Amino acid sequence: MATLKELADIVQGTVVGNAGLKINGISTVQNGKPGTITFLANPRYFKYAEFTKASAVIASNQELLGDRDGIIADNPQLAMSKVLDYFSPQYPLQVGIHASAIIDSSAKVGKGVSIGPNTIVESDVIIGNNSIIGANNVISAESVIGKNSEIKSNVHFYYGTVIGDRCLIHSGAVIGSDGYGFVSEKNTHFKIPQNGKVVIGNDVEIGANCTIDRGTIEDTTIGDMCKFDNSVQIAHNVSIGKGCLLTAHVTIAGSTKIGEFCIFGGQAGAIDHVTIGDRAIFACYTVAMKDLPGGQIYSGAPAREIKEKNRRDAVYVEIKQLKEQLKQLEEKFEVM
Amino acid sequence: MATLKELADIVQGTVVGNAGLKINGISTVQNGKPGTITFLANPRYFKYAEFTKASAVIASNQELLGDRDGIIADNPQLAMSKVLDYFSPQYPLQVGIHASAIIDSSAKVGKGVSIGPNTIVESDVIIGNNSIIGANNVISAESVIGKNSEIKSNVHFYYGTVIGDRCLIHSGAVIGSDGYGFVSEKNTHFKIPQNGKVVIGNDVEIGANCTIDRGTIEDTTIGDMCKFDNSVQIAHNVSIGKGCLLTAHVTIAGSTKIGEFCIFGGQAGAIDHVTIGDRAIFACYTVAMKDLPGGQIYSGAPAREIKEKNRRDAVYVEIKQLKEQLKQLEEKFEVM
Amino acid sequence: MATLKELADIVQGTVVGNAGLKINGISTVQNGKPGTITFLANPRYFKYAEFTKASAVIASNQELLGDRDGIIADNPQLAMSKVLDYFSPQYPLQVGIHASAIIDSSAKVGKGVSIGPNTIVESDVIIGNNSIIGANNVISAESVIGKNSEIKSNVHFYYGTVIGDRCLIHSGAVIGSDGYGFVSEKNTHFKIPQNGKVVIGNDVEIGANCTIDRGTIEDTTIGDMCKFDNSVQIAHNVSIGKGCLLTAHVTIAGSTKIGEFCIFGGQAGAIDHVTIGDRAIFACYTVAMKDLPGGQIYSGAPAREIKEKNRRDAVYVEIKQLKEQLKQLEEKFEVM
Repeated sequence: MATLKELADIVQGTVVGNAGLKINGISTVQNGKPGTITFLANPRYFKYAEFTKASAVIASNQELLGDRDGIIADNPQLAMSKVLDYFSPQYPLQVGIHASAIIDSSAKVGKGVSIGPNTIVESDVIIGNNSIIGANNVISAESVIGKNSEIKSNVHFYYGTVIGDRCLIHSGAVIGSDGYGFVSEKNTHFKIPQNGKVVIGNDVEIGANCTIDRGTIEDTTIGDMCKFDNSVQIAHNVSIGKGCLLTAHVTIAGSTKIGEFCIFGGQAGAIDHVTIGDRAIFACYTVAMKDLPGGQIYSGAPAREIKEKNRRDAVYVEIKQLKEQLKQLEEKFEVM
Repeated sequence: MATLKELADIVQGTVVGNAGLKINGISTVQNGKPGTITFLANPRYFKYAEFTKASAVIASNQELLGDRDGIIADNPQLAMSKVLDYFSPQYPLQVGIHASAIIDSSAKVGKGVSIGPNTIVESDVIIGNNSIIGANNVISAESVIGKNSEIKSNVHFYYGTVIGDRCLIHSGAVIGSDGYGFVSEKNTHFKIPQNGKVVIGNDVEIGANCTIDRGTIEDTTIGDMCKFDNSVQIAHNVSIGKGCLLTAHVTIAGSTKIGEFCIFGGQAGAIDHVTIGDRAIFACYTVAMKDLPGGQIYSGAPAREIKEKNRRDAVYVEIKQLKEQLKQLEEKFEVM
Repeated sequence: MATLKELADIVQGTVVGNAGLKINGISTVQNGKPGTITFLANPRYFKYAEFTKASAVIASNQELLGDRDGIIADNPQLAMSKVLDYFSPQYPLQVGIHASAIIDSSAKVGKGVSIGPNTIVESDVIIGNNSIIGANNVISAESVIGKNSEIKSNVHFYYGTVIGDRCLIHSGAVIGSDGYGFVSEKNTHFKIPQNGKVVIGNDVEIGANCTIDRGTIEDTTIGDMCKFDNSVQIAHNVSIGKGCLLTAHVTIAGSTKIGEFCIFGGQAGAIDHVTIGDRAIFACYTVAMKDLPGGQIYSGAPAREIKEKNRRDAVYVEIKQLKEQLKQLEEKFEVM
């Protein structure tokens, strides 16, 4: 429970109307509930504003608020995020190492660290202060986990995996598994040893069931502040620049280099050994098949700059026009 | 071992031929084995009927049976399913809670429940009567599992996950992980708390390594009798109506609403914030990129009603015709 | 540490230059480090050869070596693989069964077998000599693991799963889960029991978080020497011939038969009930939608022989030409 004024202070916004209004939670605008605050960020949902039963609204300007109580904030989505944080359910964290966890005596475990039931921490692992390792994880030898990071459940870090500070690794992720490398000769596939590691920066979030392979000679690297959705696949020797957003089922093939602040839509990907420039945006199901400079939106398979893609898709309209022109010409010709 | 008559009673079918024939198993028509019963359901396999070595056949009519012993059933595939059930291998289930399971004292565990080795059941979890929880699972705080449901191994339910009665959750599934939500401002991605839950109805099957994210404010919901294949990804705030069939690697993006009895082929999907009507069928690798009314088959990326898709694909044929017409016109023109 | 001569012997190559040169590791040609050996295999990287700081080079001929010390080998990639193997980090393996592992008394465990913490081995499982089972795995009843195989962590083998000798199963893989089979009648989906098994040959590698479903009546089979990347999905009743290479997120639908030595690029797949001939190569994101003879490269959705695919993609160029021709014709016509 908080007053509108208290929430406005949290989100660094300005109260409009009843500053003492009591707010007990947050609701969506389309299913607004009395007593809660809602927000207007995506224009797609503005149409519900008039009828919402929420008691207050966060918006970027007075006009959107109408005559409602609310908060004006520069970035209503960011403000909503802070209010959600305020109302997040709290679960008491059991700090300490569960009796069933198996920690090798050579591991260095920082202060305030939690390690859940049945988690295995192998030799020479280092875990930074205040990190939280959940249940049923396997942290293999020589892995390094920074400070204030969290690993959920059923995760495996293969040997030598490194993650930075304030990372969040969701359940079922497998990090540091062997890169997919074989040499084929006379109908035999010989395995290429994968001796590199996976090195992940600070503030990275890795979704559930993601797979990130270790490098062959050098390391596979994921830059600071990258955010991966579920089941993203990163092959060996890939490097991903800072701040990239990879959504579900994205597949980046071996040795490819992705610049900074790139965005990949669902099931999009890149083939192996290509280089993608900064701030490239790939629509869902798009596949980068060659080096691309970045700084624009790509679509299709192979990925093309979206204007070029649209031109190509216009072929169906052009065909119709051509048929019409040809028909007229033929008629004219017949007439002669 | 059963007689043909006994099997006919099980499938509510009619014996043709030797009712006392002893049947010791089931085989496919193309690899029919003496002593077993086979079935004819998919016309693609009817060609094998003449030569099968199976001793009896389930079919929808006498003609398909020829002069063989067998069973006439309205739905041979359903009948086959019942016979398979009859011949399923039986493994003695160890009812009870394994000594290595870690059950919080506040959890409410129903009668006849099994909980396997190393499974962790956190505070305030409720498990309905006769449900079976396998090994190495983590059922986080306040989750609710209905009656007669089964969870295989290495599954994680994040806090507050709800599943109904008679559900089957396959190994490696992660349910209730954080939705993929970030607000980006000045090259920084701020995490949006994901305070909703995942709520799954009755009679739902979730395949191995599926990922279903919790909602942001409201819940992600999966309707009764949905059946998911492996590695299906459901993003936050999605709602899926009852009876939907989602096959492997399907990806449904955030806040999208899927109607009832929809079918998604392999690797198909839908972008975020779209609404799909009832009984929409998506061919494999098809992507719904806008609201679609349902009630028909869609194909392609973007998904188009299949007739429209085929018309567009006909462009290659049309081009050939246009070239031919143009050539004739040019020739005629030259001649003049 | 090894001399150039020693490494040349290991890779069965020929020393060029200083045979006594001390080599302490391997590096990539683009980031060559003094004291290490590098290799030239992919022509894309030949341009770095001139400037590399590596002390020696493996190449297929003298010309590529220039005046550097190095090794001439028929297959430089295979040679590099052997050198990597020589320099692989060694982790002391704790042979034996961890105290926390739960092994059913009916299981037959071979000599020299390792079973990691919290792994569960159920009734009548057979594990061949010298196999290594990691931590937190569940090996269900009647499964069979050959000799010298390795299973990493958090893997589940459903009952009756069979793998051969020298296999490597990466973490999070789920093998033998129920095939996706339902009979639908009057808005109800009835589950078809999946009574077959998964049978995997020798020398097979299965990537992290792969899912392989058990057969319905017969078995799902994976031939010798198949190599799967991460998150590959194999549906029920599929058979895959020997030596196939399936890269990340590949999806093979039910009852499809894949020949020998086929290659599937990332996110490629095949629909159900089709037959693919030997040595078919599918580009990434390609979908086989009908029987294909193999022996060539396919691309697109639906998969087409790549020349045909290119012809179809040429439509955009052809349209341009047609427009030009038509314009000329119209102009000529106007002039008359």
